[in-house]
Amino acid sequence: MIRVGINGYGTIGRRVANAVQLQRDMKVVGIVKTRPDYVARVASSRFSIFVPDESYLKAFDDAGIKVKGVLSDLIRMSDVVVDATPEGQGKKNTPMYRTAGVKAVFQGGEEAGVADVSFNAYSCFDSAVGKSSARVVSCNTTGLARSLHALHSEFGVEHVDGTIIRRATDPNDHKKGPINALEPSLKIPSHHAPDLRTVLPVDIDTVAIKAPTTLMHIHVLNVTLKKEVQQSDVISAFSSRRRIMLVDGKDGVSSTAQVMDLARELGRDRSDMYELVIWRDAVRVSGRRVSYIQAVHQESDVVPENVDAIRALMGSMERDASIDATDSSLNIGGMKIYG
Amino acid sequence: MIRVGINGYGTIGRRVANAVQLQRDMKVVGIVKTRPDYVARVASSRFSIFVPDESYLKAFDDAGIKVKGVLSDLIRMSDVVVDATPEGQGKKNTPMYRTAGVKAVFQGGEEAGVADVSFNAYSCFDSAVGKSSARVVSCNTTGLARSLHALHSEFGVEHVDGTIIRRATDPNDHKKGPINALEPSLKIPSHHAPDLRTVLPVDIDTVAIKAPTTLMHIHVLNVTLKKEVQQSDVISAFSSRRRIMLVDGKDGVSSTAQVMDLARELGRDRSDMYELVIWRDAVRVSGRRVSYIQAVHQESDVVPENVDAIRALMGSMERDASIDATDSSLNIGGMKIYG
Amino acid sequence: MIRVGINGYGTIGRRVANAVQLQRDMKVVGIVKTRPDYVARVASSRFSIFVPDESYLKAFDDAGIKVKGVLSDLIRMSDVVVDATPEGQGKKNTPMYRTAGVKAVFQGGEEAGVADVSFNAYSCFDSAVGKSSARVVSCNTTGLARSLHALHSEFGVEHVDGTIIRRATDPNDHKKGPINALEPSLKIPSHHAPDLRTVLPVDIDTVAIKAPTTLMHIHVLNVTLKKEVQQSDVISAFSSRRRIMLVDGKDGVSSTAQVMDLARELGRDRSDMYELVIWRDAVRVSGRRVSYIQAVHQESDVVPENVDAIRALMGSMERDASIDATDSSLNIGGMKIYG
Amino acid sequence: MIRVGINGYGTIGRRVANAVQLQRDMKVVGIVKTRPDYVARVASSRFSIFVPDESYLKAFDDAGIKVKGVLSDLIRMSDVVVDATPEGQGKKNTPMYRTAGVKAVFQGGEEAGVADVSFNAYSCFDSAVGKSSARVVSCNTTGLARSLHALHSEFGVEHVDGTIIRRATDPNDHKKGPINALEPSLKIPSHHAPDLRTVLPVDIDTVAIKAPTTLMHIHVLNVTLKKEVQQSDVISAFSSRRRIMLVDGKDGVSSTAQVMDLARELGRDRSDMYELVIWRDAVRVSGRRVSYIQAVHQESDVVPENVDAIRALMGSMERDASIDATDSSLNIGGMKIYG
Ligand SMILES: NC(=O)c1ccc[n+]([C@@H]2O[C@H](COP(=O)([O-])OP(=O)(O)OC[C@H]3O[C@@H](n4cnc5c(N)ncnc54)[C@H](O)[C@@H]3O)[C@@H](O)[C@H]2O)c1
Ligand SMILES: NC(=O)c1ccc[n+]([C@@H]2O[C@H](COP(=O)([O-])OP(=O)(O)OC[C@H]3O[C@@H](n4cnc5c(N)ncnc54)[C@H](O)[C@@H]3O)[C@@H](O)[C@H]2O)c1
Ligand SMILES: NC(=O)c1ccc[n+]([C@@H]2O[C@H](COP(=O)([O-])OP(=O)(O)OC[C@H]3O[C@@H](n4cnc5c(N)ncnc54)[C@H](O)[C@@H]3O)[C@@H](O)[C@H]2O)c1
Ligand SMILES: NC(=O)c1ccc[n+]([C@@H]2O[C@H](COP(=O)([O-])OP(=O)(O)OC[C@H]3O[C@@H](n4cnc5c(N)ncnc54)[C@H](O)[C@@H]3O)[C@@H](O)[C@H]2O)c1
Repeated sequence: MIRVGINGYGTIGRRVANAVQLQRDMKVVGIVKTRPDYVARVASSRFSIFVPDESYLKAFDDAGIKVKGVLSDLIRMSDVVVDATPEGQGKKNTPMYRTAGVKAVFQGGEEAGVADVSFNAYSCFDSAVGKSSARVVSCNTTGLARSLHALHSEFGVEHVDGTIIRRATDPNDHKKGPINALEPSLKIPSHHAPDLRTVLPVDIDTVAIKAPTTLMHIHVLNVTLKKEVQQSDVISAFSSRRRIMLVDGKDGVSSTAQVMDLARELGRDRSDMYELVIWRDAVRVSGRRVSYIQAVHQESDVVPENVDAIRALMGSMERDASIDATDSSLNIGGMKIYG
Repeated sequence: MIRVGINGYGTIGRRVANAVQLQRDMKVVGIVKTRPDYVARVASSRFSIFVPDESYLKAFDDAGIKVKGVLSDLIRMSDVVVDATPEGQGKKNTPMYRTAGVKAVFQGGEEAGVADVSFNAYSCFDSAVGKSSARVVSCNTTGLARSLHALHSEFGVEHVDGTIIRRATDPNDHKKGPINALEPSLKIPSHHAPDLRTVLPVDIDTVAIKAPTTLMHIHVLNVTLKKEVQQSDVISAFSSRRRIMLVDGKDGVSSTAQVMDLARELGRDRSDMYELVIWRDAVRVSGRRVSYIQAVHQESDVVPENVDAIRALMGSMERDASIDATDSSLNIGGMKIYG
Repeated sequence: MIRVGINGYGTIGRRVANAVQLQRDMKVVGIVKTRPDYVARVASSRFSIFVPDESYLKAFDDAGIKVKGVLSDLIRMSDVVVDATPEGQGKKNTPMYRTAGVKAVFQGGEEAGVADVSFNAYSCFDSAVGKSSARVVSCNTTGLARSLHALHSEFGVEHVDGTIIRRATDPNDHKKGPINALEPSLKIPSHHAPDLRTVLPVDIDTVAIKAPTTLMHIHVLNVTLKKEVQQSDVISAFSSRRRIMLVDGKDGVSSTAQVMDLARELGRDRSDMYELVIWRDAVRVSGRRVSYIQAVHQESDVVPENVDAIRALMGSMERDASIDATDSSLNIGGMKIYG
Repeated sequence: MIRVGINGYGTIGRRVANAVQLQRDMKVVGIVKTRPDYVARVASSRFSIFVPDESYLKAFDDAGIKVKGVLSDLIRMSDVVVDATPEGQGKKNTPMYRTAGVKAVFQGGEEAGVADVSFNAYSCFDSAVGKSSARVVSCNTTGLARSLHALHSEFGVEHVDGTIIRRATDPNDHKKGPINALEPSLKIPSHHAPDLRTVLPVDIDTVAIKAPTTLMHIHVLNVTLKKEVQQSDVISAFSSRRRIMLVDGKDGVSSTAQVMDLARELGRDRSDMYELVIWRDAVRVSGRRVSYIQAVHQESDVVPENVDAIRALMGSMERDASIDATDSSLNIGGMKIYG
């Protein structure tokens, strides 16, 4: 039984906690919360609550939420800590993990140097086996890694041009905008290109534009392969991966609104869509050139990757066995509705 | 075992189907779908699919979705049909239900005349007992009925002025706007005032403004009671009802974004919030005047009401027993986090 | 010729600068900018640019934008400074103005105590005559003052309940949200009620809800008058004020999108709508109770008020003459299309 | 004096009417309106109003708006009709124009076959000279034509991959969504690619995604040139065209919100931005590959093209003279703030 501590219980942390709890070989020993808010109240009926340090105790006490200990206690009780604190905080936490000799999984908001390796289950599980720490790449990079790994391993990828239309903020945030504008990232290529190369060695350029939506990111990808293929080859490469879900416009999946609705219909925890979603009827192939459109549920696509990263660090399961275990626990691919 | 047919499997129909299936005394005998879309695909693994008439069969056949029969078959197999077809279609369906002698529950998009009675579980369950048909009032009216029934039955309501800030469309729709505007309904009072009076005899005026959001409606209510009260009286009147959930701004529930996030944390099916949500820290009382702000999850607040309406029509359970059974099956009030 | 300095050239400052420049009895001696951005570039072809102090000079120099001096220079050259710096900064600037003996007009983001008097041209022009400083109340309060002054002076207002649906941010901002939520202000009454009473002695309660739109605020007002009136009385009270524009739903003005479009059609500078907009077909009267819906263009409704405030402080023109001069320079009421 | 009739006075028609009126060699003889709405009211003080046929007269009469005649009258009085009716209506109008022997300018919502030639002033003015009709390509295609013509004529374009992030609807519409979703066009390449080739012979693929914003479209372009270039070459190719405006992120132009704000600062009629806007600091060049991000003001970028199309059809001015005249009348390039 791998004992997992969750440090940071926001968008990512709470989902990883839930997924870990569903694994037969893992259990959540506690979660770290900084504020005694409604999320803490609900979580306290399911998980032991820890706080970063003693200075946080009073607020939780005032709010009537029971605290089990502080972060250093949690670290002592854990085999692996999943650090899902805000961007940059993970780096500050590394000394504590190192000193305590606990393994650590970081998230994509941290720079690559935070951990021994960057991680994606499909493209580089093995490189993390037995390491002390791994960084699960960001939601966008995870999405890129999934479909491009499928293409790269089957046909070879020569070059990729990607346009990333980013959701501006998560659904549970009400402070960030824009409300009615499109905001380009003026750095070209955007950081997604180098980030992808930490987990998959493909030549890629990316441009990112922020749009006023909270649901999902959309990627438009123009890929030049190393050899000529047919549309059916590409579709079958995608459909052979459980963490890719093919959808069809003619079945009423016209926008990210319906993709998220599909997740609700599938009965997913928190209405999440762990799979990368690709529109089957928009896969276009001409010689060595492939174009397609994919949607990334930023809140949840990294969740199965975190679970696999824990097993890789612990060296407790092989790549394929881990992916199978994770996917079956989360019902990923269990309800493949197309292809 | 009450056999329930669901005619119309959209926003409301699919949720009522799920809730009915969770009751010990009911089961869904089938659902009517008009299009073989992703919703139908997912539903077909759980429910028998029917279509309005033979002309729909080919499309489902082409899509590879198995159809069990047509609406008239479903009606024959049902004790009660829940009609959750689009506004106005319910009225067109009444002759079929009447001829077949099946009981029917309609939704708030229909005019009051569509059914023998209009329905809200708190305010007028008994008036529907044994009737042939009932109309569950709309999401907004249901929300108004819940909090105003609490006030009216405890203190007497003399007059209400309500401003209803409406979500413009549901989350799974991508066609309707506005994207960046506020749209007043120029009819004053809006239709919500007379609609409320079909289930609760209070003097009310309402004005409605449409806002570019999909999550929830918000109501601002200024109520003049028949007697003077304290803030604590009002809060305890609200908190005594399981279908009202009190939330606090200081616990981080600052907007409808967090209310919906709370529903996800609570693990609700489709991330729904069946309860009317009232901000406890914004209840203001001065003499006989009470002001408060409530949020209505339009997709789901009518769901428990539909379940109760079925039992009322069938005369199979008393009001309180039905409400208890419904609430416990949906975990309503089971996780009361405030108050 | 009244010499006017504009300190702060954001949403409000730039519009006041333009309006001042259009007056026969005033001229802009300079504007204070803090950043050498696109706004400064365009402004520099029309106005002399000043900066708060010497520390800002290098940035403007690097950007190639010519600076005429610092704030203290501008103050020396001015009879009146219009302070349109961000909320709270105005207060910090008061000692400079006082020491220099220059008159000052502040904006509604400052607390009432910042100035000798709070200001609205219709309701309290005279109280500002000859004073050292005045605070033009906020966009929302200015809107409330306009229609309620019309009702109060003609019929007497006994009580007002107002619901204010606030635009979340201005169109030229891309950082603030929410993108898809409604956010109530949990303080009831909201600050608008006491703010209105600084310029108009009426009994009012207000509740404010923030909505994801940038165009305009909408107010829903329920007013109890001191005497019974007819709908036509109320409409004629409104239509007798040039700074109120009546619009009709049946003429296609269905939402704030069309109100802003109307401003564009009218050829207004920056497509502004200086007038408070009231839907004529939604004015409802019953005995002493009046309900109506008004829309406030937050970026510009305070602009004519600033111009009048300057004249009031200078004591250079009577109330009605000033309002006439301001309105005719900005074409307010010149294109009255209804009523 | 070229006599111009404007058939259809919506987003495009009203702007073309204004621009035509500003030309020394043209005048608007009348505009065709179908509804007596607020737009008609304002327009009637500036232009003679016509209606499609007699059946429309009563509604205008009831609304008190004076009508000068019907479309056939307007055609008789015109040398050229600019048809800015909704998509598809232009085609239906062609027989009337042909029979009357009047020249006609159509808009991009019509198919290419509607007119003798498709039109863009930079890329194919001469092909329209003396023809009977021309179709000004759509807002997106006009934007593509401008920057790609600059690149193609200076360096030769081998291939273009474009991602078009479309504004979902215009600011004066409140009906269309999505409110909170991204909607891909599942046809790849989208119609923009073939449409561009009607005015510029370059090899291009495009993918289009609709986003919930009303302000502007954004295009991400990856271009392979026929020869190697430097970044400065590309920037100077762009900056040599008046109808391209370069902006800089470091000057505060971070999103389409600021681009539109800049248009307001420039004092443009209806706050329009006729120029194609390109972010100078996001132009990336590597060998023969160029990437850049451009923003298109859909409401107005085709306006100068319509004016030039009129002159081309009339054969009354050479290409460069026409472009100069149009640009100077609309102050295009007169306030070049960068480059
Ligand atoms: N949200 C996404 O779309 C997304 C997707 C993939 C990866 N990520 C990455 O995951 C990480 C977490 O992001 P998130 O979106 O979950 O953020 P979040 O803001 O939703 O959650 C972070 C949580 O950490 C808590 N916290 C703050 N300081 C802390 C501290 N010192 N110790 C412990 N907890 C602390 C916050 O209260 C919050 O609950 C970041 O690296 C981010 O880049 C986010
Ligand atoms: N969505 C809400 O916010 C909400 C809330 C409360 C009440 N209501 C009411 O519930 C009713 C249903 O609304 P909804 O939001 O679920 O609509 P919806 O559009 O989401 O669902 C209606 C479903 O009925 C199907 N349908 C269409 N014609 C049909 C026919 N002839 N026979 C059977 N099915 C048909 C549609 O395909 C769709 O799946 C309406 O009366 C509405 O006013 C809606
Ligand atoms: N925007 C509105 O809707 C609105 C409406 C009515 C009143 N107001 C009030 O008007 C005032 C100004 O608001 P705004 O919306 O124009 O803000 P803004 O942010 O658009 O503009 C403020 C400007 O002041 C500049 N600035 C910052 N610090 C400065 C300093 N120390 N000295 C000089 N300039 C400085 C900023 O760079 C900015 O350009 C506030 O009191 C606000 O509450 C705003
Ligand atoms: N809005 C844009 O972003 C944009 C940009 C470039 C090109 N276009 C193209 O310009 C054309 C007009 O589009 P728009 O956006 O101005 O549309 P719009 O809907 O804003 O305006 C069309 C106008 O035509 C009127 N109309 C309808 N039927 C008519 C008839 N039979 N005779 C005369 N008038 C009639 C309508 O009342 C409306 O005022 C379309 O081909 C469109 O594709 C639009």
